Amino acid sequence: MNAPAPPSATFILTLSCPNRPGIVAAISQHLYERGANITEAQQFDDTGSRQFFMRIVFELARKEGLLHTLRTQFTDIASSFSMSWTLTDTRHRPRVLLLVSRFDHCLVDLLYRWRIGELRIEPVGIVSNHPREIFADVDFYGIPFHYLPVTKDTKAEQEERIWSLFTHSDAELAVLARYMQVLSNAMAARLSGRCINIHHSFLPGFKGARPYHQAFSRGVKLIGATAHYVTSDLDEGPIIEQDVERISHADSPDDLIRKGRDIERRVLARAVRFHIERRAIMNANKTIVFTP
Amino acid sequence: MNAPAPPSATFILTLSCPNRPGIVAAISQHLYERGANITEAQQFDDTGSRQFFMRIVFELARKEGLLHTLRTQFTDIASSFSMSWTLTDTRHRPRVLLLVSRFDHCLVDLLYRWRIGELRIEPVGIVSNHPREIFADVDFYGIPFHYLPVTKDTKAEQEERIWSLFTHSDAELAVLARYMQVLSNAMAARLSGRCINIHHSFLPGFKGARPYHQAFSRGVKLIGATAHYVTSDLDEGPIIEQDVERISHADSPDDLIRKGRDIERRVLARAVRFHIERRAIMNANKTIVFTP
Amino acid sequence: MNAPAPPSATFILTLSCPNRPGIVAAISQHLYERGANITEAQQFDDTGSRQFFMRIVFELARKEGLLHTLRTQFTDIASSFSMSWTLTDTRHRPRVLLLVSRFDHCLVDLLYRWRIGELRIEPVGIVSNHPREIFADVDFYGIPFHYLPVTKDTKAEQEERIWSLFTHSDAELAVLARYMQVLSNAMAARLSGRCINIHHSFLPGFKGARPYHQAFSRGVKLIGATAHYVTSDLDEGPIIEQDVERISHADSPDDLIRKGRDIERRVLARAVRFHIERRAIMNANKTIVFTP
Amino acid sequence: MNAPAPPSATFILTLSCPNRPGIVAAISQHLYERGANITEAQQFDDTGSRQFFMRIVFELARKEGLLHTLRTQFTDIASSFSMSWTLTDTRHRPRVLLLVSRFDHCLVDLLYRWRIGELRIEPVGIVSNHPREIFADVDFYGIPFHYLPVTKDTKAEQEERIWSLFTHSDAELAVLARYMQVLSNAMAARLSGRCINIHHSFLPGFKGARPYHQAFSRGVKLIGATAHYVTSDLDEGPIIEQDVERISHADSPDDLIRKGRDIERRVLARAVRFHIERRAIMNANKTIVFTP
Repeated sequence: MNAPAPPSATFILTLSCPNRPGIVAAISQHLYERGANITEAQQFDDTGSRQFFMRIVFELARKEGLLHTLRTQFTDIASSFSMSWTLTDTRHRPRVLLLVSRFDHCLVDLLYRWRIGELRIEPVGIVSNHPREIFADVDFYGIPFHYLPVTKDTKAEQEERIWSLFTHSDAELAVLARYMQVLSNAMAARLSGRCINIHHSFLPGFKGARPYHQAFSRGVKLIGATAHYVTSDLDEGPIIEQDVERISHADSPDDLIRKGRDIERRVLARAVRFHIERRAIMNANKTIVFTP
Repeated sequence: MNAPAPPSATFILTLSCPNRPGIVAAISQHLYERGANITEAQQFDDTGSRQFFMRIVFELARKEGLLHTLRTQFTDIASSFSMSWTLTDTRHRPRVLLLVSRFDHCLVDLLYRWRIGELRIEPVGIVSNHPREIFADVDFYGIPFHYLPVTKDTKAEQEERIWSLFTHSDAELAVLARYMQVLSNAMAARLSGRCINIHHSFLPGFKGARPYHQAFSRGVKLIGATAHYVTSDLDEGPIIEQDVERISHADSPDDLIRKGRDIERRVLARAVRFHIERRAIMNANKTIVFTP
Repeated sequence: MNAPAPPSATFILTLSCPNRPGIVAAISQHLYERGANITEAQQFDDTGSRQFFMRIVFELARKEGLLHTLRTQFTDIASSFSMSWTLTDTRHRPRVLLLVSRFDHCLVDLLYRWRIGELRIEPVGIVSNHPREIFADVDFYGIPFHYLPVTKDTKAEQEERIWSLFTHSDAELAVLARYMQVLSNAMAARLSGRCINIHHSFLPGFKGARPYHQAFSRGVKLIGATAHYVTSDLDEGPIIEQDVERISHADSPDDLIRKGRDIERRVLARAVRFHIERRAIMNANKTIVFTP
Repeated sequence: MNAPAPPSATFILTLSCPNRPGIVAAISQHLYERGANITEAQQFDDTGSRQFFMRIVFELARKEGLLHTLRTQFTDIASSFSMSWTLTDTRHRPRVLLLVSRFDHCLVDLLYRWRIGELRIEPVGIVSNHPREIFADVDFYGIPFHYLPVTKDTKAEQEERIWSLFTHSDAELAVLARYMQVLSNAMAARLSGRCINIHHSFLPGFKGARPYHQAFSRGVKLIGATAHYVTSDLDEGPIIEQDVERISHADSPDDLIRKGRDIERRVLARAVRFHIERRAIMNANKTIVFTP
């Protein structure tokens, strides 16, 4: 009689390093020797920067302390190739801090996807510069809410409180789900690579305020939305995902705002998904996205 | 024994005027009294400018001098409403001057659509700042070719020759089918509303030179093309049509250029079609497009 | 001192009748004589059936009993052209009965759009063949919920109860928001033109059960969803709206289901919107949709 | 003084085999030992069939007989994993036989892409069941044309002549560029995996004849085209690529045919490109497409 197979664990390895021959051979040999079965692998050679990027998904029989062991074992190979790398157990649900202003469509959409198990995150808090009453009709499912109003004078202090929430809740990702405040350079730097924003235009068109009104005035025939990593350079962060919809001369700015809501929420949800599945990897001012 | 029905003629009426009650009633009554059968009608109230726009397609039994008669009869109603208007027999094929630089994909595509009868135009000439040899592999089907090289010093003179070709060939439309020269303000003004350009970016993003290289550098996830009426304000002409395609981090600038060719040619062809079917109507810095 | 202008009322007139000259003239003259200002008008000649369709939006100074007056006045012109017609005050919010099975993404989406004022409906009830506990995490905002389980044996009786709910709540529209029960021919006939279903495939591909699994097995490269009016001919109802998304060989059936949710909810929401704005008009086994 | 680096050769390796641990390690080690630099790699585990698929692009210093050497060296590893595999020099241009009936838009488009160097093929012949005069306006650039009319009675004989042309010209791929003849089972079997067809519908919808008329009758809101490998099961071949465009109730069958031409030509061109870049790999009744 066979003993039942031990439950299998699945890991995601991402890495980047200067390109040179032998990287794939070394990594795949390393994983093979440990009995890993590679189920997904994607790579990208940035011929401009001569930097190499890779994402590998592999399975192993689950056992106590396996992730720690794998990380320790990978250290040597990583340093010999000067790699930046991450290794994640897919059972791990990243802790996420959600920030929102008045418009709740992106927030509600993310919470829905989380609730039905589509988005494997662990929301640790919802921050808004508007009070809880604004969201009276939204069920937060027990996620702590933090009302952190902000003015020019209190911005530094308010950001300090956000940062404190982020760090004390062990959050790995902040999502600006239509949080209509510009982060300070210092705050953007602190959250670099760990903060995704949804901009309600097809960047680089219509930067700045009221992009749907700008689009209406310019008479474009498609409008869009852009999810990007937040950097200190406003509206210039590395783009993760974009999408568009067709409009016509008969669409008012309000029609654009309505159509835009649908674009924004699906673009942001895809970007968050790419991030937590470690498909999105920042590469200077761009983002590599290893789509399935 | 019945006599055969006289062949039917189809006309397109377009008009714009200050909005006020009774326009539609007056026009439809006017056409009804003349025995016209309206087969298509679209209208748009620009609530911002309080300007009214309409496009009507109607049929009448064809007879000698009908178009002239209709135009004469419409004069009174048009002036009582202060209308700008056009009335066209759909049998009429607009005479079109095609301008091109080195890249021939838009030109070849327009010629193909014309040849198979899809695009009901009458090409009266092809102008290029490159010599005929550049297009050695392209059949021009007897359309006169004009090699008009241009330098900074000869620009005024060269444009004068283009203008002369345009007027002497009774052209109604100039199509810049990847004609990589910027028209002077004077020339743009002369051709206002009669000149369509294809810009190889999703405007207003990536104005100016080498937009695909700009798109590559910025790391956008969709690229596009824009067909617009040429005005003296470069890259700011009223947009007629736009479209996009998805790209990825793995696409090189050359890949973007290749994918862009497909977008450019279909966007330009649609815009030319909208124009010659009188579906596109300039409205200040925008374009109303009465799509079917 | 000027008296304030009376508040303006906006009406939507839709009609269809055998095509013949003079319809537009008669209607526009009729409306002009009553002081109406036409703000939108679209028409369609079905050359196959020789049937004419029109949708007109017009404004009038609001006063007591205006809708009734307009309807009475329109009766003569309507009967002289043998018209089917509707006349609606845009202030009117159609009463809608929502039906759902286990998957709540379409329901939650419609409720969200209603809550923020995007979808101008009046939900009068939510019917499910699953009990309220299934939707424990969904706020119904006080909309009455009706648990109506169904088996083969009780189907006739259950449908009778739905019909009773529909009529007693003065509902004008039933929306099958992933209600996974096939309506009987009799029920479909009763609700003809007043019931919209979302089918989770790009019809006519993948009719019947488990369309995403069918799509996976067939290896298509795009999946879609279809909103249609329910008729007694299953999966053959007049299509109102469709949309698609790209998939790849690496997408599992679960990935298709996930991507499909996004398509389904936006396609259904658009179809409901088209219906309540009276843009969607059934034309035998097809639907005319006068998009903006 | 440095000697100039030897010119580099680029190869594409594709393979499939029963999945088991160690495949990637073995291949990447094998290539590394030969000094190859892997520039692209994609893989897919078909968990249903437990079959593993991979596509690898790598560079090596070019030298005489290198391809032969690489193939010989790879034999051992291939047989130890029971691989089906191909190894191609990217300088190699596949020889392609083009088949066409009356409509030439796909043919003209493929020839254009070939002429400007976008599609790296070597057209070895054009076959039609219509005579050369039908294509009087199309420049074949010296590619041999073969008029092979076909009737029910002569079908077997005509296909024999096509097969003879295919083999004697060392063709590797046959492209049915709107060749409106159904291949016999025998012919389809001979060309299995080496013959791409463009079907003018979004399969599996509207199989069979006159799909645009079917789409018009059904009242769909999007039409599409499908490129697939030809198999003996008509309209059921493994799908390589699909795309769609939006239509409306106002579009006639002729409008659908016109819009369809644009979809067909770009879908077919993409599929041919995927095939010659060895991105498309047949997997039973589906196609894996390793898009860039």
